Amino acid sequence: MLTASLKSQLSEGLPEERSEHRQKKVIKMGNCCERAANFFGPQKNTYIRVSLPAVCFVWQIAMVVLFGVFIRYDEESDEKGWNEFKKSHNITSNIENDFYFRYPSFQDVHVMIFVGFGFLMTFLKRYSFGGVGFNFLIAAFGLQWALLMQGWFHALDPVTGKITIGIESLINADFCCAGSLIAYGALLGKVSPVQLMVVTLFGVTLFAVEEYIILDLFHCRDAGGAMVIHTFGGYYGLAISWVLYRPNLNLSKRLNGSVYHSDLFAMIGALFLWMFWPSFNSAITNHGAGQHRTVINTYLALASCVLTTFAISSMSQKKGKLDMVHIQNASLAAGVAMGTAAELMITPYGSIIVGFCCGIISTFGYLYVTPFLEKKLKLQDTCGIHNLHAVPGMLGGFVGAIVAATATEEIYGKEGLIETFDLTGKFENRTMSTQGGYQAAGTCVAIAFGLVGGVCVGFILRFPIWGDPADDFCFDDEAYWELPEDEETIPPVLEYNNHMVNKHHDTHESQFSLEES
Amino acid sequence: MLTASLKSQLSEGLPEERSEHRQKKVIKMGNCCERAANFFGPQKNTYIRVSLPAVCFVWQIAMVVLFGVFIRYDEESDEKGWNEFKKSHNITSNIENDFYFRYPSFQDVHVMIFVGFGFLMTFLKRYSFGGVGFNFLIAAFGLQWALLMQGWFHALDPVTGKITIGIESLINADFCCAGSLIAYGALLGKVSPVQLMVVTLFGVTLFAVEEYIILDLFHCRDAGGAMVIHTFGGYYGLAISWVLYRPNLNLSKRLNGSVYHSDLFAMIGALFLWMFWPSFNSAITNHGAGQHRTVINTYLALASCVLTTFAISSMSQKKGKLDMVHIQNASLAAGVAMGTAAELMITPYGSIIVGFCCGIISTFGYLYVTPFLEKKLKLQDTCGIHNLHAVPGMLGGFVGAIVAATATEEIYGKEGLIETFDLTGKFENRTMSTQGGYQAAGTCVAIAFGLVGGVCVGFILRFPIWGDPADDFCFDDEAYWELPEDEETIPPVLEYNNHMVNKHHDTHESQFSLEES
Amino acid sequence: MLTASLKSQLSEGLPEERSEHRQKKVIKMGNCCERAANFFGPQKNTYIRVSLPAVCFVWQIAMVVLFGVFIRYDEESDEKGWNEFKKSHNITSNIENDFYFRYPSFQDVHVMIFVGFGFLMTFLKRYSFGGVGFNFLIAAFGLQWALLMQGWFHALDPVTGKITIGIESLINADFCCAGSLIAYGALLGKVSPVQLMVVTLFGVTLFAVEEYIILDLFHCRDAGGAMVIHTFGGYYGLAISWVLYRPNLNLSKRLNGSVYHSDLFAMIGALFLWMFWPSFNSAITNHGAGQHRTVINTYLALASCVLTTFAISSMSQKKGKLDMVHIQNASLAAGVAMGTAAELMITPYGSIIVGFCCGIISTFGYLYVTPFLEKKLKLQDTCGIHNLHAVPGMLGGFVGAIVAATATEEIYGKEGLIETFDLTGKFENRTMSTQGGYQAAGTCVAIAFGLVGGVCVGFILRFPIWGDPADDFCFDDEAYWELPEDEETIPPVLEYNNHMVNKHHDTHESQFSLEES
Repeated sequence: MLTASLKSQLSEGLPEERSEHRQKKVIKMGNCCERAANFFGPQKNTYIRVSLPAVCFVWQIAMVVLFGVFIRYDEESDEKGWNEFKKSHNITSNIENDFYFRYPSFQDVHVMIFVGFGFLMTFLKRYSFGGVGFNFLIAAFGLQWALLMQGWFHALDPVTGKITIGIESLINADFCCAGSLIAYGALLGKVSPVQLMVVTLFGVTLFAVEEYIILDLFHCRDAGGAMVIHTFGGYYGLAISWVLYRPNLNLSKRLNGSVYHSDLFAMIGALFLWMFWPSFNSAITNHGAGQHRTVINTYLALASCVLTTFAISSMSQKKGKLDMVHIQNASLAAGVAMGTAAELMITPYGSIIVGFCCGIISTFGYLYVTPFLEKKLKLQDTCGIHNLHAVPGMLGGFVGAIVAATATEEIYGKEGLIETFDLTGKFENRTMSTQGGYQAAGTCVAIAFGLVGGVCVGFILRFPIWGDPADDFCFDDEAYWELPEDEETIPPVLEYNNHMVNKHHDTHESQFSLEES
Repeated sequence: MLTASLKSQLSEGLPEERSEHRQKKVIKMGNCCERAANFFGPQKNTYIRVSLPAVCFVWQIAMVVLFGVFIRYDEESDEKGWNEFKKSHNITSNIENDFYFRYPSFQDVHVMIFVGFGFLMTFLKRYSFGGVGFNFLIAAFGLQWALLMQGWFHALDPVTGKITIGIESLINADFCCAGSLIAYGALLGKVSPVQLMVVTLFGVTLFAVEEYIILDLFHCRDAGGAMVIHTFGGYYGLAISWVLYRPNLNLSKRLNGSVYHSDLFAMIGALFLWMFWPSFNSAITNHGAGQHRTVINTYLALASCVLTTFAISSMSQKKGKLDMVHIQNASLAAGVAMGTAAELMITPYGSIIVGFCCGIISTFGYLYVTPFLEKKLKLQDTCGIHNLHAVPGMLGGFVGAIVAATATEEIYGKEGLIETFDLTGKFENRTMSTQGGYQAAGTCVAIAFGLVGGVCVGFILRFPIWGDPADDFCFDDEAYWELPEDEETIPPVLEYNNHMVNKHHDTHESQFSLEES
Repeated sequence: MLTASLKSQLSEGLPEERSEHRQKKVIKMGNCCERAANFFGPQKNTYIRVSLPAVCFVWQIAMVVLFGVFIRYDEESDEKGWNEFKKSHNITSNIENDFYFRYPSFQDVHVMIFVGFGFLMTFLKRYSFGGVGFNFLIAAFGLQWALLMQGWFHALDPVTGKITIGIESLINADFCCAGSLIAYGALLGKVSPVQLMVVTLFGVTLFAVEEYIILDLFHCRDAGGAMVIHTFGGYYGLAISWVLYRPNLNLSKRLNGSVYHSDLFAMIGALFLWMFWPSFNSAITNHGAGQHRTVINTYLALASCVLTTFAISSMSQKKGKLDMVHIQNASLAAGVAMGTAAELMITPYGSIIVGFCCGIISTFGYLYVTPFLEKKLKLQDTCGIHNLHAVPGMLGGFVGAIVAATATEEIYGKEGLIETFDLTGKFENRTMSTQGGYQAAGTCVAIAFGLVGGVCVGFILRFPIWGDPADDFCFDDEAYWELPEDEETIPPVLEYNNHMVNKHHDTHESQFSLEES
């Protein structure tokens, strides 16, 4: 009896956190039981020991074979070819090699793909490994597949049957991956790496086709890929996520959020994207004034976007506090929206206006549209790619159409107009308003490819063979990663230090604690 | 009675940390009460829901209008202009566009401004969001305002009344922001974002004026901005901080320090600053040997500085332990101090000597001068910009003066001397010793502008309308950011994992814990 | 008696973690006692307050003197020299300065050295400061010493007795440091900074000699340093670590591992290495097609390597979970292995095959070879440099030998073959198979220098004067860094926030807690 009373006293004496903790434990055990029950019924299993290595090996071996058959160096990277090219084009200096025009931009784009996208997706408290790690995996696969797909559509030599690649091909391959990485943003935490490989395989394939239609058939300009990358990638991801809707995702709610330091990791990604977006948009524009102007326009639009993002973020909260989700994402929307128009003569203030609007639209999207989509359309969009890529991309497509339609010889010069829109060959007589119309049509093609392709791929991903996590096991690196021991179990170093300082005291204390225990 | 005895037993049984924790809680509650009392009297309020959006919107709309009126592409980024420029200058290759000389350096500078300065200021344990986030905000605003201010002073076409911008303007705009970001270093954690916008508005304005005096009227050389950026920015920040002295800042003492991982985030910023400082100093120097030499000099000085910083840091502690504050900051001082002299023929060993001295001076500053300033001059300098920017910048100005004064035709060649110091037009007959004198005078102008401007801006910031935090609410992101839940409340994933493994045991335990709770 | 009973009750009532914690404390105290005992006997002492500053100052002063005697600007960075060079070589544009060919690659290499290597070594839970901080120190020293050593061997003007440096020298100096930083990987956490300075002093010296033999005497091609950097650095580190074997290292076992966020910091380093490896391999290759091709080859090999790394990592674990150690390290092995062959015409699919194999070999190394080395060969290799540098480097050397031996005029063109292998002067008549033989021999030289040099340096490091930590004090920043207070002691901000919201409740609670305590 005394024991009982003591027990109750003791449990009263225990700190609140502990009892809370215990309650949590109980809740979790509830989940465990449920899961144990599921074990013998139909259920999800994150076992990927066969499927992931199989997919990686099969596809990588396919790459070896296909590269062996198709891919060769182009004339600027081939030793013999470049020497001949220099002679035939009467070039005296190696600095004329396309490499020196494109390499700094390429490396910036490369950083955006791997550190930018990768770390932007580390914001979840317990899915940072998955965010940056799977981004790494699918980008590394995607760029190889992209070199082949884009090569077949754009650079296949009809005589030799070979694809020749150079620095511009590498940039385009990185761009092509970006489409699938954007789609990953909507799926973050809810799919297995094997599913992501499938998303990337089809994503890159669809990308190459829509890019062929938009850039080659429609002859649109889209250097920074507002249409072909962001609009397509955004709607592709949203459509997949819509098909893969999880009604019980709130079982993983406790992990669908950030912690202080995970938000800082995400900020690394966000800043590298923001800083290098001028390189992204200018990487494959025309040499000279084209690249130069694209950088200026993107730089200004992004700066302007930051201010309106902060403004709307602050206005949206009762006390005017800022939300890291907006700062990390909405401030990038201007880069997306300038994807098409940045290389055109949109003027500096035009760029600032685009940035101004994007910050507002994108932040509103995070505040109202994403929750609306989830509730009403049953569309779970982990990173809010709807507001960062889909809508700004679409907007960018239409802005590009308007700027193209209003282009005149007066502004560009006769030569400049032809160069900028590449009005040669069969497009020699295209008027600017026609060009504008095609640009707008291109945007619609990108949306259509994204939505239709995404729905199809979504259904493929619903086969129960891909090892995706159960609804109560989402947003959790535990599913696919061997995790290190918890931070809380680090032996308290400082305490240790104190012991070293107060050595004599320790000796006594240690005896005491030895007795006590 | 038994209860009482038990209670005392229980509290004895409780670990020391807990009772400490409780004590802290009580102290904090004391603060709370005090604050609650203040609520009805005169007090600080961090409510910025109206002021921050208002400032952002008004200023950004002003930017749209002013850019519309004034800013145009320059002849190297304008489609028509570049084609005409190539013809008129007989240029055959696009690689001659200034873009290809400057773009890699520009991107490095851009990284320094946003990731370098931003992450260097994440070192505080609970002000990392504010460090990197507000840095982002004010740099994005500052660079737009800088393009206008610097344009009016340096690039206004008297005929058309327009400012034309190119890649060099973007670099200069980034530089101009740096002045205000340095000032932010002294104010970190003690001001509101609205105040920072004011600091930046005036900072950029003052910068453009002092830069006009130093570079145009005095015709000084200062490519890396030892004078115009670092000396000015440093003293500007110190003067503001002096006016905004908070006698009760020790109420926030518990948050004025780092934790293990916040120091690592800061190290990212420090390293990007350190690595890219050669680009910073060389970004706008003369093409060819000028840029080349600047990089070599800065690289050597920085390397040398690291060793003396480690040496002094180790010597200063009883057991020879190193201090992260020194490593993150003092090792950068050489970059600042080489800001003026790096483009001159200071010789490689001259650069190493400058770095050698800077590491010592700056580390001593952190050890003795910053505490002294705080105690005796009532100057609270959160990041120690006195030791990283103000003093090394001033030093750099005088080093530059000496190197300029000792320049000879023998070293530079006749042509080289004219090119390096731009001794054309009305400066054709200036002697090197005169040049040195002007360089020294320029440093004094930078100090004066910083101090006087800072005091004035400081008084503006003392109006009680800016939403700055109370003395016990400094260094706390809680004031301006919606923070994610605490890390300690992450459900322990490993435990969870263990449950999965020992599923059968769990079932029993769970029953037990259900009973118990 | 009641007290005793209560005590036992109390200790029963305490949560398990706590008692575990206490047990740990006791164990640690055991260590303390042991250490206290050692204090009066022979023991390790991490006191470096004299030795570290002494080494830093002496060596840095030596640098000043030696730079003053030997180092000058080269003709492309000297103001007068460049003007004369332009005239004598009939160059009209500054863009022909080597600076514009190399600077973007140089900055990428610089990032790899300081952020790449530095952050890759932050993965340990309590040695992140040491990882990134000591990397910073030794690289900053090493690059100065490298400029001298490499200058003496490669660039000493026999007439003037001076070494002239330019951008390529800076890249080579960074490369030279890389050798010692790789060695640091094997020693991470087990040596003092003073020892690391010794490792670097000898490492750079040995590097310069073996580089002279391999590149100058044997006339090998090794632009990315598979042989001279990675093979040498890897075996150098392994040999030192073997000599410094610590039989009781398991006393520090609790700290020899990562935590969640330290793995993310390491991922920053890994990704920057991965992304910029194309720049590393191409930084000093021939202008034009040479640099261009090297980038393509390295890019493809790295992408391919990622997929096989993920595959093997997943296969190796019972449930198919991925291991961050593999992802961070093995995915980089392809960059190492392409160090020699990347500039040759290895073909795109050849690169992919190399990457394919490297991912497998390196991951297997982490799984089986490192534990085997530790158990059987008594070789403790903290970062697994055996699998990331030593073996892939050796492999890369032999791949390079094969590709060189099979080079033909048909593939390279006559001119191209001469340029690529620099077959001029006394090497004019060397056949390709001879070249291949020398390449293979060069790899063996690198291994020999690494092993023999490492053993010698290892014995030097065993003198008991360097301040290295005791076996139970390894992997602990506590030894050499003033650490900030523990994260767990941050006052709980959210709780604080709750108090602000529920102000009235607080008042009561605070009274209560005042009473209670």
